[in-house]
Amino acid sequence: MRNLNQHTITKAVIERLADTQDERLKEIMTSLVQHLHAFAREVELTEDEWFKGIQYLTATGQMCDDKRQEFILLSDVLGLSMLTVAMNNDKPAGCTEATVFGPFHVDGAPHYADGDDVANGAAGIPCRVRGTVKGLNGEPVAGAVIEVWQADAQGNYDVQYPGLDEPQARGVLKSGPDGRFHFRTIVAEAYPIPSDGTVGELLRATGRHPWRPAHLHFMIKAPRYETLVTHVFRKGDQYLDSDAVFGVRESLVGDWLAQPDGSYTLDFDFVLNPGK
Amino acid sequence: MRNLNQHTITKAVIERLADTQDERLKEIMTSLVQHLHAFAREVELTEDEWFKGIQYLTATGQMCDDKRQEFILLSDVLGLSMLTVAMNNDKPAGCTEATVFGPFHVDGAPHYADGDDVANGAAGIPCRVRGTVKGLNGEPVAGAVIEVWQADAQGNYDVQYPGLDEPQARGVLKSGPDGRFHFRTIVAEAYPIPSDGTVGELLRATGRHPWRPAHLHFMIKAPRYETLVTHVFRKGDQYLDSDAVFGVRESLVGDWLAQPDGSYTLDFDFVLNPGK
Repeated sequence: MRNLNQHTITKAVIERLADTQDERLKEIMTSLVQHLHAFAREVELTEDEWFKGIQYLTATGQMCDDKRQEFILLSDVLGLSMLTVAMNNDKPAGCTEATVFGPFHVDGAPHYADGDDVANGAAGIPCRVRGTVKGLNGEPVAGAVIEVWQADAQGNYDVQYPGLDEPQARGVLKSGPDGRFHFRTIVAEAYPIPSDGTVGELLRATGRHPWRPAHLHFMIKAPRYETLVTHVFRKGDQYLDSDAVFGVRESLVGDWLAQPDGSYTLDFDFVLNPGK
Repeated sequence: MRNLNQHTITKAVIERLADTQDERLKEIMTSLVQHLHAFAREVELTEDEWFKGIQYLTATGQMCDDKRQEFILLSDVLGLSMLTVAMNNDKPAGCTEATVFGPFHVDGAPHYADGDDVANGAAGIPCRVRGTVKGLNGEPVAGAVIEVWQADAQGNYDVQYPGLDEPQARGVLKSGPDGRFHFRTIVAEAYPIPSDGTVGELLRATGRHPWRPAHLHFMIKAPRYETLVTHVFRKGDQYLDSDAVFGVRESLVGDWLAQPDGSYTLDFDFVLNPGK
């Protein structure tokens, strides 16, 4: 335990985990220490670089509050979020695919009745969204809790407006007895993820654009089914092949159709995975 | 770029780094993404575990302020700090070894004259510290800037007392023309690293004790020499073989000697590495 060097320290740290009661925690920490140390050795991390990393993580944490989650955003742009989603959502063929949760979900969104306008004043082109929640055998899922959230025409979620204390363009609905749901909102548009924080700094330093293709978030919960966290992406969006957070699935691309009155409609059905 | 799965996403994220101007940043980010993803795949990280990780990092960042650096503490207990120090301080034989910087250094410590008491009211047994700063060939290093900091008898650094607005048990001195320095302070005692934050939570969950063997921090800067960041550890301390942050070097163990009047003395010489 004295005179540990770069070759012996990893084993010493892992040995110090011997008394971990929770076997799963021990497994996770052991792997984390191995990979963290392997990374530092592989790049021969300098002390200045180590300190820049400390400062970066600190600033990332300090940007977080009840409306901003910069660490989720960081995980998103590093592909860790989508990797985790992909590993944990290997659903049977026919089920709607999952994608990233993102940093803009907030608890306590308002509840709406079928047909209501969840926009609640958010700027954008009016849009009607309709669909059915089904099970894998085509059975309608009645009373599914459907939470939706999205950015407005300026590419901002409600929580990104400091003065706004009322939820906009987010809400909770329920599917009817036939599994159908219907709500009004605004058309989803492509938007850049927030670039005023540490994630924006990383994207600029690595020459990456911050854009996400237009999408509408859904989280659908129903008893005896696996919770589905997903988006519907907008067909024709220029960023479908370069989503800043790697979330696009071909099966999740939906067609927003222009109507004669200038509004749009989106029809999209969801198929839930039966719970294990 | 659509339909990325756990096997294809790592390559896609790395390809997105192609336009990074800074080649070193590209190298670091490429390795980081590979190891981060390999960790998640190796443990088959669940979505709940991922979110706990996000919450943990967020809380760690939010604990940090101008007097508390929980991310350095986390790096310390995971052995990353000592690994980085070891990789970057492979000094010639005869030079004083380096060890971890720790989270308790603060800029702007008061300057003291030779022989002054840096304790400035900190509780503890009086102690005189004497030594010489030399170069590798034994030449005295005159005018070296010697910064010292340490915990008090209660095991706390000054910055851990919320009401205290005056630096205690830290200060900046200069070596004399013969390389010698001399100051008064208090005896260093073993102490537990702060356990009221996320690092304490990790130590408890992994059954680890939070103790560091008694030590006195030194940072010594002189023109034409490499800056030395190190501690002197106290001979006989029960935690020398289980330092919570893996920092002990046998060559850095010094002997605090009890004097007839109840005070102590420490004599320790430092040998700086000639700059590259």
